[in-house]
Amino acid sequence: MRIAELSRHTGVPVPTIKYYLREGLLPAGELTSPNQARYDDRHVQRLRLVRVLLDIGRLPIATIRQLLAALDEPDPDVHKVLGHALPSAVANKDSIDPDAVRRERQRIDELVQKRGWLVGPEAPARQAAAEVLAAFEQVGADVSMLLGQYADAVETIAVYDLQFVGRAGTPEGMLHAAVVGSILGDSLLAALRRMAEEHESAKKFGIRGDDC
Amino acid sequence: MRIAELSRHTGVPVPTIKYYLREGLLPAGELTSPNQARYDDRHVQRLRLVRVLLDIGRLPIATIRQLLAALDEPDPDVHKVLGHALPSAVANKDSIDPDAVRRERQRIDELVQKRGWLVGPEAPARQAAAEVLAAFEQVGADVSMLLGQYADAVETIAVYDLQFVGRAGTPEGMLHAAVVGSILGDSLLAALRRMAEEHESAKKFGIRGDDC
Repeated sequence: MRIAELSRHTGVPVPTIKYYLREGLLPAGELTSPNQARYDDRHVQRLRLVRVLLDIGRLPIATIRQLLAALDEPDPDVHKVLGHALPSAVANKDSIDPDAVRRERQRIDELVQKRGWLVGPEAPARQAAAEVLAAFEQVGADVSMLLGQYADAVETIAVYDLQFVGRAGTPEGMLHAAVVGSILGDSLLAALRRMAEEHESAKKFGIRGDDC
Repeated sequence: MRIAELSRHTGVPVPTIKYYLREGLLPAGELTSPNQARYDDRHVQRLRLVRVLLDIGRLPIATIRQLLAALDEPDPDVHKVLGHALPSAVANKDSIDPDAVRRERQRIDELVQKRGWLVGPEAPARQAAAEVLAAFEQVGADVSMLLGQYADAVETIAVYDLQFVGRAGTPEGMLHAAVVGSILGDSLLAALRRMAEEHESAKKFGIRGDDC
């Protein structure tokens, strides 16, 4: 298909598609003349993935480029791929005390070791978790109990996530599912969690007539 | 304390504090002369909360203003407060098919009803969840099984979250904990979940020597 059709198919405007091509987020089409290229279904898939990573994952362009490069390797490393698929926890690190982050990083490393989690020492998620714990500390919240409870909860969730990945069948499909499931899963969990919190709060503290 | 001291205490630059004052994210200090004001501990707390909502929650300024106004009401409505404390799932709605969102919204409404969740019909989280499900649909992922599993998981997490809120003691402390716990909790869960996924994947698909 031509670029105009690719645009109609995905709802992504042509100038945006050209931008993604320049930024290396979308592989070039097959040239059919010096200024026309042909695109196929893989471009449609890739374009939809890029939009999800941008619009829901809010990953920076450079991170998406690395992630797609890792996905396209002949023998992709699933841990590397998943590592790139984690949005940075903190948009602006200035507001977080680096000493607190170092302290909390140690707490996370201990948690990983105690639970026997097979997680690389350089996994970006370790640092992301430490940054969030430092932010909790900064607003005066004690999360010691919550941290263990959340760790229990994510152990269960990760089993579901890997089942979701496994259902994809092919190796490429599984890798795609891992990326999509990680990024979209964060947002789905956040929205469902907010509803469950509202429910739990309504049960515990009573409901107002205008709420339900 | 003077504004310079407030800045030193929180690490937030003076021009940024002035910007927050103009935007109504921080209440004015007590005027001690026509161009000097005095700030106290409540300003320190509020400033730290604003930074968390901005830098980790990535909430837009207008949303934070509404959230803080809801927090400051004499008889704050916890559901309204929690509703504002949900970052929009989708940064750019253009990339999501509105028909798919309507379809998925129905699925979410059915899930809420089936589970007997006490969630207001206008809760922003219903729409956020529908948008994420539409995005899953758009990348060709079938989440029917995952949705139920996630709903189970968040029911447990919400119990932990309300325990966390309850430990704050005072009504204001509890509301503060609900906001902080919701926003920071999303990021903490995401980071821990990524580690648990890496662990689960290492168990299931074997570990590479250089990863652990």
